[in-house]
Amino acid sequence: MNKTLFTDFYELTMGQTYFNSGEKNKKVYFDCFFRRNPFKGGYTLKGGLEEIINYILNFKFTEDDIKYLKSLNCFTDDYLDYLKNLRFTGDIWAIPDGTPVFENEPNLIVRANIIEAQIIETALLAYFNHANLVLTKAKRMTELIKNVPVMEFGARRGPGDAGLIVSKYAYIGGCAGTSNTLAGKIYDIPVMGTMAHSMICNEKDEYTAFLNYAKSNPNNCVFLVDTYNTLESGIPNAIKVAQDYLLPHGYKFKGIRIDSGDLITLSKQARKMLDDAGFYDTSICLSNGLNEEAIKALQEGGAKFDTLGIGDNLACPLDIMGGVYKLVATEEDGIIVPKIKVSEDPIKTTNPGFKKVYRLYSKITHNFLADIVALYDEVLPLDNLVLDTFDNQKIILNDYEIKELLIPIFKNGQLVYNLPTAKETKDYCDKAFQEIPDQVKDLTNPVNYPVFLSPNLFNLKKQMLEKEKEMTLVRRKG
Amino acid sequence: MNKTLFTDFYELTMGQTYFNSGEKNKKVYFDCFFRRNPFKGGYTLKGGLEEIINYILNFKFTEDDIKYLKSLNCFTDDYLDYLKNLRFTGDIWAIPDGTPVFENEPNLIVRANIIEAQIIETALLAYFNHANLVLTKAKRMTELIKNVPVMEFGARRGPGDAGLIVSKYAYIGGCAGTSNTLAGKIYDIPVMGTMAHSMICNEKDEYTAFLNYAKSNPNNCVFLVDTYNTLESGIPNAIKVAQDYLLPHGYKFKGIRIDSGDLITLSKQARKMLDDAGFYDTSICLSNGLNEEAIKALQEGGAKFDTLGIGDNLACPLDIMGGVYKLVATEEDGIIVPKIKVSEDPIKTTNPGFKKVYRLYSKITHNFLADIVALYDEVLPLDNLVLDTFDNQKIILNDYEIKELLIPIFKNGQLVYNLPTAKETKDYCDKAFQEIPDQVKDLTNPVNYPVFLSPNLFNLKKQMLEKEKEMTLVRRKG
Repeated sequence: MNKTLFTDFYELTMGQTYFNSGEKNKKVYFDCFFRRNPFKGGYTLKGGLEEIINYILNFKFTEDDIKYLKSLNCFTDDYLDYLKNLRFTGDIWAIPDGTPVFENEPNLIVRANIIEAQIIETALLAYFNHANLVLTKAKRMTELIKNVPVMEFGARRGPGDAGLIVSKYAYIGGCAGTSNTLAGKIYDIPVMGTMAHSMICNEKDEYTAFLNYAKSNPNNCVFLVDTYNTLESGIPNAIKVAQDYLLPHGYKFKGIRIDSGDLITLSKQARKMLDDAGFYDTSICLSNGLNEEAIKALQEGGAKFDTLGIGDNLACPLDIMGGVYKLVATEEDGIIVPKIKVSEDPIKTTNPGFKKVYRLYSKITHNFLADIVALYDEVLPLDNLVLDTFDNQKIILNDYEIKELLIPIFKNGQLVYNLPTAKETKDYCDKAFQEIPDQVKDLTNPVNYPVFLSPNLFNLKKQMLEKEKEMTLVRRKG
Repeated sequence: MNKTLFTDFYELTMGQTYFNSGEKNKKVYFDCFFRRNPFKGGYTLKGGLEEIINYILNFKFTEDDIKYLKSLNCFTDDYLDYLKNLRFTGDIWAIPDGTPVFENEPNLIVRANIIEAQIIETALLAYFNHANLVLTKAKRMTELIKNVPVMEFGARRGPGDAGLIVSKYAYIGGCAGTSNTLAGKIYDIPVMGTMAHSMICNEKDEYTAFLNYAKSNPNNCVFLVDTYNTLESGIPNAIKVAQDYLLPHGYKFKGIRIDSGDLITLSKQARKMLDDAGFYDTSICLSNGLNEEAIKALQEGGAKFDTLGIGDNLACPLDIMGGVYKLVATEEDGIIVPKIKVSEDPIKTTNPGFKKVYRLYSKITHNFLADIVALYDEVLPLDNLVLDTFDNQKIILNDYEIKELLIPIFKNGQLVYNLPTAKETKDYCDKAFQEIPDQVKDLTNPVNYPVFLSPNLFNLKKQMLEKEKEMTLVRRKG
């Protein structure tokens, strides 16, 4: 299905305005960024690029779309003709997926003809916001239990077909695999799973259900043991099937899963029962509405587990990612003219101009030190960077290495980026995540990671704010 | 894209088990239901049927899917051959979309060959859970302000492409329209919108931006007035453009939108300014992260508004809908054999058997009185229904009319249901919602709506629980 029409209606009415005012070839710059990390956390992990690239590559209104728009009686024929032939011809820069990103720095920049730039806003933000939310949530949970593989089980609780996207970004964010077979196929993610209560209910008894499953899936035997009674029925039956069938036939008793009850107590007793029967390597998988707090409680309570299954809290991350897309500059006669949106709420005042984002790494720890949002043509010093802040502080940074974060994705409408595989992005994410300072990674009380404006950007913003203040005074007098 | 593989991996390994144990033609019954209304509310509105129907109609593994499954080295060739030819040949009954539904009653029942019934579980639950969540959230918010049209603006904060589904169910749940143009086209939903801050920032001043927009969209003029300063700049400029351009050319000054700041104070002052200029009919639209609490605060604070825009809280409803799919019966030699899953947590113990759901309406108020979950072949009395409960109460119901809620959707794999349009479902939902008792509709402290087991179902469950208890004792002794 062509998704070009997946755009807020106002993008199209504004487009008509630009078309009629003769601005259709005006180049504009939009920044995509967010103002607050989700989950009250200290970081966000960037996602959504594959979906954005696919949307842009297929950006073209169909005849049917145009017919529909015409039926709304809001658009002129010449504008609809223009839309019919519209393709994305602009430039996009983005921070690669899997990169830790922070508040108020551009994660993606669009430079394009104004109507193109405007129409792509909605889909671009939707993919960006959803991917960031899931990816960040996955990392928050998997990071708590680094050596424990987490299986993503979210499909049934997820946003319909977008469960696919959940599986992909959960994997990138640290999950070992997914239960979603289609995601496994499309993104080459390991697929995994155990069994459902229905299978046990369907057979005449639990032993028979386990035995049948073992015979048909001998290399994939993780028995779900909590259908009737975990300790009195489930685990004894699982052990019996392992002894009666798996071991005699040379197969491994891979594991058990407990999906209800007091997971701490049950898992400890389960471990003891398995060990007592000699199944030291048989793993215990725990699941049932796990989130950060529940995982911590398992750890603190000394629960015994080797893998976790997480569904609900990946499929429905229970926060809203507020990524926005703001006009920051236009081009007039080839000159870049910065734009600012002033708000009474300072956090909502935008950073003007066409920009770059630099990450400064400590030469000593190789951790991130600070991010600097700079003007596109500004050269940062290789040492001794002196920064002003709007609360009248002076910050001096030293002993850093500099890396530029935004890289070209589209150039004149052409894709110029080789999208990594999900596995490559996962590995990159894993590595990049290690470089975030520990205090910033704290889940409940993180230190704010510093994102500074460069000297030139700071001065530009200050001047523009002063000019705006004067204009407000003029308005008031008038 | 074919979505048949959008299934949890364990559905396929369990399928292989049933295939090998010779059970592939065994008929089973699954109930789809939920145990807890979302948002701590007293009701849920049922959705997801269109998506489920489309999934079932297109249920067929592609050659490519089979090739992928083969590559996993978990499945035998004869099972894969079976999957290649698998279609859905069973029966599905469902409560129509838009119907208020309650905890622990089947909303959808599947009767099918066990492998078919199992494989469709994941997608079916995903569509069910997502739709119910959005639809219920939309109704909770729109119901608070019945006479105020709500525009759904969620696409950019939604779950990627599933934003489409958000728009549809938000509309069914009471929104007047959507900003999502594709949803407008596909589901014939009114599309609407105002303008973005970027348009104002792009022009040399706010007046010019409004004027250009007015000239190009004269019938759709809702000016966004909070880019610089709502009261000192936005509203005066909007009024000026209305006076300079709209009125002289015979157009209406349709409205303004305020998207930031103290919406209560600003809207009151905005109303006064518009009235003072003679624009009594010019509407005020408020937006900015609105949810139930924020809407109540607007009302209690005496905010002046004619429409609302809601995005974030429809796109990300901030709760998890825990719909489940449980085996409740099998057929053995043509006889229906009820199945039960007992849990130490009584709410997790399933209701056994092939069932029907009846809604009893008060003959006096025509409101819902109670729902009765009954066995499929049980006839309820037309008056004087005596019910037992598991906490040893006797309930007697009188003066009711009875309606059966589950209707046939598929019969032997054939669709036998005419899916209503989104508009028809919206109208039906609106009407059905009025029949929920008021105390059950309370958003913060709802009365629990009674869902009873019929006499026969109660007795069946009681007997099966007693038998299970005995078996547990046997297990313990053993």
